[in-house]
Amino acid sequence: MSLNADRDFLTWTRRIQEETEACLRDVLPAATLVPQRLHEAMRYAVLEGGKRVRPLLVHAAGNITGASPSRLHMAAAAVELIHCYSLVHDDLPCMDDDVLRRGKPTCHVEYDEATALLVGDSLQSLAFQLLSEHALAESSETQLSMVKLLARASGSRGMAGGQAIDLASIGKTLTLPELELMHIHKTGALIRASVLLGAYCGRQLEEAELERLDHYAKFTGLAFQVIDDVLDTEADTATLGKTAGKDATQEKPTYVSLMGAAAARQFGEELYQSAIDALTEFDDRADRLRDLAAYIVKRQH
Amino acid sequence: MSLNADRDFLTWTRRIQEETEACLRDVLPAATLVPQRLHEAMRYAVLEGGKRVRPLLVHAAGNITGASPSRLHMAAAAVELIHCYSLVHDDLPCMDDDVLRRGKPTCHVEYDEATALLVGDSLQSLAFQLLSEHALAESSETQLSMVKLLARASGSRGMAGGQAIDLASIGKTLTLPELELMHIHKTGALIRASVLLGAYCGRQLEEAELERLDHYAKFTGLAFQVIDDVLDTEADTATLGKTAGKDATQEKPTYVSLMGAAAARQFGEELYQSAIDALTEFDDRADRLRDLAAYIVKRQH
Repeated sequence: MSLNADRDFLTWTRRIQEETEACLRDVLPAATLVPQRLHEAMRYAVLEGGKRVRPLLVHAAGNITGASPSRLHMAAAAVELIHCYSLVHDDLPCMDDDVLRRGKPTCHVEYDEATALLVGDSLQSLAFQLLSEHALAESSETQLSMVKLLARASGSRGMAGGQAIDLASIGKTLTLPELELMHIHKTGALIRASVLLGAYCGRQLEEAELERLDHYAKFTGLAFQVIDDVLDTEADTATLGKTAGKDATQEKPTYVSLMGAAAARQFGEELYQSAIDALTEFDDRADRLRDLAAYIVKRQH
Repeated sequence: MSLNADRDFLTWTRRIQEETEACLRDVLPAATLVPQRLHEAMRYAVLEGGKRVRPLLVHAAGNITGASPSRLHMAAAAVELIHCYSLVHDDLPCMDDDVLRRGKPTCHVEYDEATALLVGDSLQSLAFQLLSEHALAESSETQLSMVKLLARASGSRGMAGGQAIDLASIGKTLTLPELELMHIHKTGALIRASVLLGAYCGRQLEEAELERLDHYAKFTGLAFQVIDDVLDTEADTATLGKTAGKDATQEKPTYVSLMGAAAARQFGEELYQSAIDALTEFDDRADRLRDLAAYIVKRQH
């Protein structure tokens, strides 16, 4: 990227992040509504946090199909709510038992376990509510496909399933294909859903185009995870905003533990290149997706 | 009900319960699919259990609009999955901490807490998947309304919200209106959704007709809860299939603790009558709903 393009991308990123925040503030129930404590905790778990990578992917993909920002914001909020619910549940004592998330006490530490459980449950419901109560696609048929896509990506054959595979792998030696299978579920499914949901908000694409976008998302999602593993090893807790070095402490298999840090970083670069290659036949409307892949691989936290 | 009508209703009930079981077996991921333990636990939590009251309501309401059984089964399965997920999460140590459900060890006792958490999460996703991946209504617009309806009924302004209100009420003295507010959320929302989802599967009703069905569902849902409280006091654990007398032990406010058992039973009868009254303008195609209200109030467990 040239310096100007880089600056333009960062400006765009900042704007989407801010608008996503505003949209999330708007769609989350007010903390004054009954049950207040639950709603307050839902807002705590979602607002002022995260890089909003999934919303960025939704908007970047929507750029290709000329989708309206208002539709993209709603689809992006739905995906981000699913992501946030998964973080709240993953942090619970019976799962990763983590006390720090995005530089703040985790939801169950700030509130209590029962509330955190219900926060996650309610955020998931809210995500499907958002996908169904606003017109988000050219047809209701397409919009139903969006609901189906997000439901599959979230469930036992997607994100939640990945979490189960992750749990089962603690203390075990995984092969690289096994590690990949876990990540394809745990983070990959929702990242792929983000890209396709964004695309679905606009004009209809050919099946082949959707497949290329899906390839892009698959490689980008995996690159994201590989770099996450590298950062978990290299960065400190303050930079990361969550407990660093936790994977090693918990004896979780990672790309770093299997390949070493340098090879893992190299693998991340290769995945990035594959993601870019998948977009070859798209014109410059796919530049946001290209920039995002670069951003994901080159980030420091 | 005459003896013949009664026999007919019981035959119908048995048939719907069996078909619901078959449908749930079919839509739940096979225990041989990765991640196997999660899928096995999902099946454990859902199959061979419960009276399937919500599916019965879906089918009874669908009888009014002439909905096809296959659509009703899918809608019924979606609602039942939401109900089952809520039971799995409610039983967790950080919530009700219960070890017995439907006469079997609860999910987290049979498996582990982390798995039970993911079972609930995955069942919720699967419910929305079912509502979106099969044609269930005359139009996709109507079907999107069904997704919205179930999402709202499940979330923080519905079932999960009711659970939060319930948690906040332990050890407190509630007024009757406060207790009602809790139940309208906790069990009422999903029961109302069941009736409306069933109706939506068939020909379109007038707004006024939908409202009458909603009134029926509201009264029936509340009657269900009032009788639940009575049964929790009167029945023993073996009959109930879950730990009896638990409300009193946990100092949970109930209709029995606020009104006494006799007055609570009387209140249940009045609610039943209001439910029947709400159906006055429907013909005999609403008889299944009438019979169900009677069944709910007169049941012994």
